[in-house]
Amino acid sequence: MQQHINFITLGVADIAVSRRFYQDAFGWQETADSNDNIAFFQAGNALRFALYGKNALAEDAQVPAESSGFPRFALAHNVGSEAEVDALFATLGEKNATIVKAPHKAFWGGYSGYIADPDGFLWEIAYNPFLPVLR
Amino acid sequence: MQQHINFITLGVADIAVSRRFYQDAFGWQETADSNDNIAFFQAGNALRFALYGKNALAEDAQVPAESSGFPRFALAHNVGSEAEVDALFATLGEKNATIVKAPHKAFWGGYSGYIADPDGFLWEIAYNPFLPVLR
Repeated sequence: MQQHINFITLGVADIAVSRRFYQDAFGWQETADSNDNIAFFQAGNALRFALYGKNALAEDAQVPAESSGFPRFALAHNVGSEAEVDALFATLGEKNATIVKAPHKAFWGGYSGYIADPDGFLWEIAYNPFLPVLR
Repeated sequence: MQQHINFITLGVADIAVSRRFYQDAFGWQETADSNDNIAFFQAGNALRFALYGKNALAEDAQVPAESSGFPRFALAHNVGSEAEVDALFATLGEKNATIVKAPHKAFWGGYSGYIADPDGFLWEIAYNPFLPVLR
Protein backbone atom coordinates (compact mmCIF):
# COMPACT_ATOMS: atom_id res chain seq x y z
CA MET A 1 0.00 0.00 0.00
CA GLN A 2 1.58 3.22 -1.13
CA GLN A 3 1.89 6.13 1.27
CA HIS A 4 -0.74 8.57 0.14
CA ILE A 5 -3.98 9.95 1.53
CA ASN A 6 -6.35 11.29 -1.10
CA PHE A 7 -9.36 12.43 0.92
CA ILE A 8 -10.13 13.67 4.39
CA THR A 9 -13.90 13.67 4.81
CA LEU A 10 -15.52 15.26 7.84
CA GLY A 11 -18.97 14.03 8.89
CA VAL A 12 -20.71 17.28 9.80
CA ALA A 13 -24.02 18.10 11.51
CA ASP A 14 -25.13 20.64 8.89
CA ILE A 15 -23.35 20.77 5.57
CA ALA A 16 -24.67 24.28 4.73
CA VAL A 17 -23.27 25.68 7.98
CA SER A 18 -19.94 23.91 7.50
CA ARG A 19 -19.39 24.90 3.89
CA ARG A 20 -20.16 28.50 4.79
CA PHE A 21 -17.58 28.31 7.57
CA TYR A 22 -14.83 26.99 5.28
CA GLN A 23 -15.75 29.46 2.55
CA ASP A 24 -16.05 32.50 4.81
CA ALA A 25 -13.68 31.97 7.73
CA PHE A 26 -11.00 30.05 5.80
CA GLY A 27 -11.67 31.72 2.45
CA TRP A 28 -11.47 28.35 0.72
CA GLN A 29 -13.07 27.67 -2.66
CA GLU A 30 -15.00 24.53 -3.48
CA THR A 31 -14.28 22.45 -6.55
CA ALA A 32 -16.72 22.59 -9.47
CA ASP A 33 -17.92 19.04 -8.78
CA SER A 34 -19.23 19.88 -5.30
CA ASN A 35 -23.00 19.63 -4.83
CA ASP A 36 -25.70 20.11 -2.18
CA ASN A 37 -24.74 16.87 -0.45
CA ILE A 38 -20.96 17.09 -0.46
CA ALA A 39 -18.43 19.90 -0.58
CA PHE A 40 -14.90 19.32 -1.91
CA PHE A 41 -11.92 21.59 -1.42
CA GLN A 42 -8.56 20.92 -3.04
CA ALA A 43 -6.17 20.91 -0.06
CA GLY A 44 -2.95 19.84 -1.72
CA ASN A 45 -1.82 18.51 -5.07
CA ALA A 46 -3.22 15.05 -4.42
CA LEU A 47 -5.45 15.79 -1.44
CA ARG A 48 -9.11 16.73 -1.24
CA PHE A 49 -10.86 17.89 1.91
CA ALA A 50 -14.58 16.99 1.94
CA LEU A 51 -17.62 17.88 4.01
CA TYR A 52 -20.40 15.30 4.15
CA GLY A 53 -23.33 14.73 6.50
CA LYS A 54 -22.27 12.70 9.54
CA ASN A 55 -25.23 10.33 9.27
CA ALA A 56 -24.57 9.86 5.56
CA LEU A 57 -20.90 9.17 6.26
CA ALA A 58 -21.73 6.62 8.96
CA GLU A 59 -24.26 4.99 6.66
CA ASP A 60 -21.77 4.86 3.81
CA ALA A 61 -19.25 3.11 6.04
CA GLN A 62 -21.98 0.97 7.62
CA VAL A 63 -21.11 1.96 11.18
CA PRO A 64 -23.42 3.35 13.90
CA ALA A 65 -23.64 7.15 13.72
CA GLU A 66 -23.71 7.77 17.47
CA SER A 67 -20.78 9.76 18.78
CA SER A 68 -19.92 12.35 21.37
CA GLY A 69 -17.07 14.47 22.62
CA PHE A 70 -13.54 14.96 21.36
CA PRO A 71 -13.31 13.89 17.69
CA ARG A 72 -9.89 12.30 18.41
CA PHE A 73 -8.02 13.89 15.52
CA ALA A 74 -6.72 17.25 14.42
CA LEU A 75 -5.80 18.77 11.10
CA ALA A 76 -2.95 21.21 10.78
CA HIS A 77 -2.34 24.13 8.46
CA ASN A 78 1.27 25.29 8.54
CA VAL A 79 2.48 28.77 7.68
CA GLY A 80 5.91 30.31 7.30
CA SER A 81 6.41 32.38 10.46
CA GLU A 82 5.09 33.21 13.93
CA ALA A 83 3.74 36.49 12.55
CA GLU A 84 1.73 34.60 9.96
CA VAL A 85 0.20 32.42 12.70
CA ASP A 86 -0.80 35.54 14.64
CA ALA A 87 -2.21 37.22 11.54
CA LEU A 88 -4.28 34.15 10.68
CA PHE A 89 -5.66 33.90 14.22
CA ALA A 90 -6.64 37.57 14.07
CA THR A 91 -8.52 36.96 10.82
CA LEU A 92 -10.15 33.74 12.05
CA GLY A 93 -11.17 35.41 15.30
CA GLU A 94 -13.03 38.09 13.33
CA LYS A 95 -14.87 35.41 11.41
CA ASN A 96 -16.83 32.48 12.73
CA ALA A 97 -13.97 30.38 14.11
CA THR A 98 -13.83 29.36 17.75
CA ILE A 99 -10.42 30.10 19.20
CA VAL A 100 -9.69 26.99 21.26
CA LYS A 101 -6.10 27.76 22.21
CA ALA A 102 -4.40 31.03 21.37
CA PRO A 103 -1.01 30.74 19.65
CA HIS A 104 2.00 30.22 21.89
CA LYS A 105 5.48 28.73 21.79
CA ALA A 106 5.13 24.97 21.63
CA PHE A 107 7.25 22.42 23.49
CA TRP A 108 8.48 21.00 20.16
CA GLY A 109 10.07 24.27 19.17
CA GLY A 110 7.36 25.75 17.00
CA TYR A 111 4.55 28.23 17.50
CA SER A 112 0.93 27.17 17.23
CA GLY A 113 -2.66 27.39 18.40
CA TYR A 114 -5.96 25.63 17.74
CA ILE A 115 -9.31 26.73 16.35
CA ALA A 116 -12.52 24.70 16.01
CA ASP A 117 -15.03 24.54 13.18
CA PRO A 118 -18.82 24.46 13.78
CA ASP A 119 -18.70 20.74 14.72
CA GLY A 120 -15.75 21.14 17.07
CA PHE A 121 -13.26 19.67 14.58
CA LEU A 122 -9.84 20.95 15.50
CA TRP A 123 -7.36 22.76 13.29
CA GLU A 124 -3.89 23.55 14.51
CA ILE A 125 -2.42 26.64 12.86
CA ALA A 126 1.32 26.27 13.18
CA TYR A 127 4.74 27.57 12.35
CA ASN A 128 7.31 24.77 12.40
CA PRO A 129 10.86 26.05 11.97
CA PHE A 130 12.06 22.50 11.24
CA LEU A 131 9.76 21.75 8.31
CA PRO A 132 9.44 23.71 5.09
CA VAL A 133 5.85 24.69 4.28
CA LEU A 134 4.90 22.78 1.19
CA ARG A 135 1.64 23.27 -0.64
CA MET B 1 -5.75 31.27 4.25
CA GLN B 2 -4.23 29.14 1.54
CA GLN B 3 -5.79 25.80 0.70
CA HIS B 4 -3.41 23.26 2.13
CA ILE B 5 -3.49 20.71 4.93
CA ASN B 6 -0.09 19.74 6.26
CA PHE B 7 -0.89 17.25 9.02
CA ILE B 8 -3.60 14.78 9.91
CA THR B 9 -3.01 13.67 13.49
CA LEU B 10 -4.98 10.80 14.99
CA GLY B 11 -5.38 10.68 18.76
CA VAL B 12 -4.92 6.97 19.47
CA ALA B 13 -5.44 4.81 22.56
CA ASP B 14 -2.06 3.05 22.32
CA ILE B 15 0.59 4.49 20.06
CA ALA B 16 2.65 1.26 20.01
CA VAL B 17 -0.37 -0.72 18.79
CA SER B 18 -1.27 1.91 16.20
CA ARG B 19 2.22 2.35 14.77
CA ARG B 20 2.53 -1.43 14.44
CA PHE B 21 -0.78 -1.49 12.57
CA TYR B 22 0.28 1.18 10.07
CA GLN B 23 3.70 -0.40 9.66
CA ASP B 24 2.47 -3.98 9.31
CA ALA B 25 -1.00 -3.83 7.76
CA PHE B 26 -0.40 -0.77 5.58
CA GLY B 27 3.32 -1.37 5.08
CA TRP B 28 4.02 2.32 5.73
CA GLN B 29 7.40 3.62 6.88
CA GLU B 30 7.83 6.23 9.57
CA THR B 31 9.96 9.31 9.07
CA ALA B 32 13.34 9.51 10.81
CA ASP B 33 12.08 12.21 13.18
CA SER B 34 9.41 9.95 14.71
CA ASN B 35 9.91 9.03 18.38
CA ASP B 36 8.25 7.03 21.18
CA ASN B 37 5.54 9.66 21.64
CA ILE B 38 4.63 10.44 18.05
CA ALA B 39 4.82 8.60 14.74
CA PHE B 40 4.99 10.47 11.45
CA PHE B 41 4.36 9.03 7.99
CA GLN B 42 4.82 11.05 4.82
CA ALA B 43 1.42 10.72 3.11
CA GLY B 44 1.86 13.07 0.18
CA ASN B 45 4.33 15.66 -0.98
CA ALA B 46 3.16 18.23 1.56
CA LEU B 47 1.18 15.98 3.90
CA ARG B 48 2.18 14.13 7.02
CA PHE B 49 0.02 11.58 8.79
CA ALA B 50 0.72 11.41 12.54
CA LEU B 51 -0.19 9.13 15.43
CA TYR B 52 -0.26 10.71 18.87
CA GLY B 53 -1.84 9.68 22.18
CA LYS B 54 -5.46 10.81 22.36
CA ASN B 55 -5.07 12.27 25.85
CA ALA B 56 -1.92 14.09 24.78
CA LEU B 57 -3.70 15.46 21.71
CA ALA B 58 -6.67 16.67 23.76
CA GLU B 59 -4.29 18.22 26.28
CA ASP B 60 -2.32 19.95 23.52
CA ALA B 61 -5.52 21.46 22.12
CA GLN B 62 -6.84 22.15 25.64
CA VAL B 63 -10.10 20.32 25.11
CA PRO B 64 -11.69 17.56 27.27
CA ALA B 65 -10.45 14.12 26.18
CA GLU B 66 -13.76 12.29 26.66
CA SER B 67 -15.23 10.82 23.52
CA SER B 68 -17.17 7.84 22.29
CA GLY B 69 -18.54 6.25 19.16
CA PHE B 70 -18.14 7.16 15.51
CA PRO B 71 -15.07 9.37 15.02
CA ARG B 72 -17.03 11.49 12.50
CA PHE B 73 -14.43 11.48 9.76
CA ALA B 74 -12.87 9.14 7.25
CA LEU B 75 -9.61 9.09 5.34
CA ALA B 76 -9.41 7.72 1.82
CA HIS B 77 -6.67 5.99 -0.09
CA ASN B 78 -7.36 5.84 -3.81
CA VAL B 79 -5.96 3.30 -6.22
CA GLY B 80 -6.10 2.91 -9.98
CA SER B 81 -8.63 0.12 -10.59
CA GLU B 82 -11.30 -2.11 -9.03
CA ALA B 83 -8.81 -4.98 -9.10
CA GLU B 84 -6.37 -2.93 -7.03
CA VAL B 85 -9.09 -2.25 -4.46
CA ASP B 86 -9.82 -5.99 -4.22
CA ALA B 87 -6.13 -6.86 -3.97
CA LEU B 88 -5.60 -4.32 -1.20
CA PHE B 89 -8.59 -5.63 0.77
CA ALA B 90 -7.23 -9.16 0.45
CA THR B 91 -3.88 -8.03 1.86
CA LEU B 92 -5.45 -5.93 4.62
CA GLY B 93 -7.76 -8.79 5.56
CA GLU B 94 -4.74 -11.06 6.08
CA LYS B 95 -3.17 -8.46 8.34
CA ASN B 96 -4.66 -6.75 11.35
CA ALA B 97 -7.25 -4.56 9.61
CA THR B 98 -10.95 -4.81 10.44
CA ILE B 99 -12.99 -5.06 7.26
CA VAL B 100 -15.91 -2.73 7.96
CA LYS B 101 -17.52 -2.80 4.51
CA ALA B 102 -16.32 -5.05 1.73
CA PRO B 103 -15.68 -3.33 -1.62
CA HIS B 104 -18.67 -2.82 -3.88
CA LYS B 105 -19.87 -0.52 -6.64
CA ALA B 106 -20.63 2.87 -5.09
CA PHE B 107 -23.59 5.13 -5.92
CA TRP B 108 -21.17 7.84 -7.13
CA GLY B 109 -19.81 5.60 -9.86
CA GLY B 110 -16.69 4.25 -8.20
CA TYR B 111 -15.78 1.11 -6.31
CA SER B 112 -14.88 1.21 -2.64
CA GLY B 113 -14.97 -0.31 0.81
CA TYR B 114 -13.96 0.63 4.35
CA ILE B 115 -11.50 -0.77 6.86
CA ALA B 116 -10.90 0.34 10.44
CA ASP B 117 -7.66 0.77 12.36
CA PRO B 118 -7.24 -0.36 16.00
CA ASP B 119 -9.12 2.74 17.28
CA GLY B 120 -11.98 2.39 14.79
CA PHE B 121 -10.68 5.18 12.56
CA LEU B 122 -12.09 4.61 9.11
CA TRP B 123 -10.20 4.33 5.84
CA GLU B 124 -12.03 4.13 2.56
CA ILE B 125 -10.08 2.26 -0.09
CA ALA B 126 -11.44 3.47 -3.40
CA TYR B 127 -11.21 3.45 -7.14
CA ASN B 128 -12.65 6.64 -8.59
CA PRO B 129 -12.86 6.55 -12.41
CA PHE B 130 -13.40 10.33 -12.45
CA LEU B 131 -10.27 11.35 -10.56
CA PRO B 132 -6.69 10.54 -11.45
CA VAL B 133 -4.74 8.98 -8.57
CA LEU B 134 -2.12 11.50 -7.58
CA ARG B 135 0.58 10.74 -5.03
